[in-house]
Amino acid sequence: MVADSTRASGQPDRGRRDRIIDAALDVIAAQGVAGTSHRKVAAAAGVPLGSMTYHFAGMDELLHEAFSRFADRGAQRFAERMARTGTPAEALNAVVEGIITDIPPSGSDEQVVTYELYTLAARNPAFRDITERWMAASRTALEKHFDPLTARLLDALIEGLAVHRTLDRDPAAVAQMIEGIRRITRP
Amino acid sequence: MVADSTRASGQPDRGRRDRIIDAALDVIAAQGVAGTSHRKVAAAAGVPLGSMTYHFAGMDELLHEAFSRFADRGAQRFAERMARTGTPAEALNAVVEGIITDIPPSGSDEQVVTYELYTLAARNPAFRDITERWMAASRTALEKHFDPLTARLLDALIEGLAVHRTLDRDPAAVAQMIEGIRRITRP
Repeated sequence: MVADSTRASGQPDRGRRDRIIDAALDVIAAQGVAGTSHRKVAAAAGVPLGSMTYHFAGMDELLHEAFSRFADRGAQRFAERMARTGTPAEALNAVVEGIITDIPPSGSDEQVVTYELYTLAARNPAFRDITERWMAASRTALEKHFDPLTARLLDALIEGLAVHRTLDRDPAAVAQMIEGIRRITRP
Repeated sequence: MVADSTRASGQPDRGRRDRIIDAALDVIAAQGVAGTSHRKVAAAAGVPLGSMTYHFAGMDELLHEAFSRFADRGAQRFAERMARTGTPAEALNAVVEGIITDIPPSGSDEQVVTYELYTLAARNPAFRDITERWMAASRTALEKHFDPLTARLLDALIEGLAVHRTLDRDPAAVAQMIEGIRRITRP
């Protein structure tokens, strides 16, 4: 009965659609956007190939949903981290902890998917709303503790430290990151 | 005679190898790393397909050469810009000018190739020496004017401002970037 009424409400099998989106992120991590196909995602999700066209108008819709979920999760994790802090000192510590804890290690699925998203958004403006929303959410989370200009500059510094942490042989040490955050947040 | 002696010196047809590397960058920009093939690069370079295997052991060698050339050009451009400056104030202006002038617009070939490189390096450690060399060169160029810690933090801020300039709807304005550079370079 429950299943039937769910179907009648126009929300058939939400679980399967969700599963497909998560499976798409796994396939993107393993094979890249260019190597992602309906067939591979269906196999990874354990659903029949026909489900793909039932749930998604095409590959662009699936990719958009998958990267949106990925970015929204990252944004939410950061917002929750910043919301848990009270004093400015706690906020600074939370930023540092976020860089150390939340930035995925080099070569991890999360790191690879982040750069796949950046590449896709640089290449195709139809995906840029995802990065824009992510960056706006980061700024909003930082604005709970810092003025808008400081939040913006700090967000850029965090982004740069994150890139260097992944792609530099000799990334900034924790004490150096703290010094950078201290400098950028001091008017 | 010249051509013959060049060949005898073990440097046969450098021009053709160079042309292939440049063509590979064009193909990467248009089609992505995953869409780059010997056939497409040969066609773009106007060389016979057989030239590809003559000049490169495989696709990884070609990609490594192409991205190395791309990164080294970017690093050299930045180093020259910083070398032309004398006073600290001139150095700060050069950094700002570098961000405004050298960071390619969103969706440009250069921007896309940069993110293709980041994605490849995140995915495959065999390409990480390229990003590492690029970032080390940026720091060295900045160390002509700033202490090592400041150079490192400034380099991270430039990286972050560059990412946001490409992928954010509402990137930092020039005056905001100047304020960020002022803050990060002030001990």
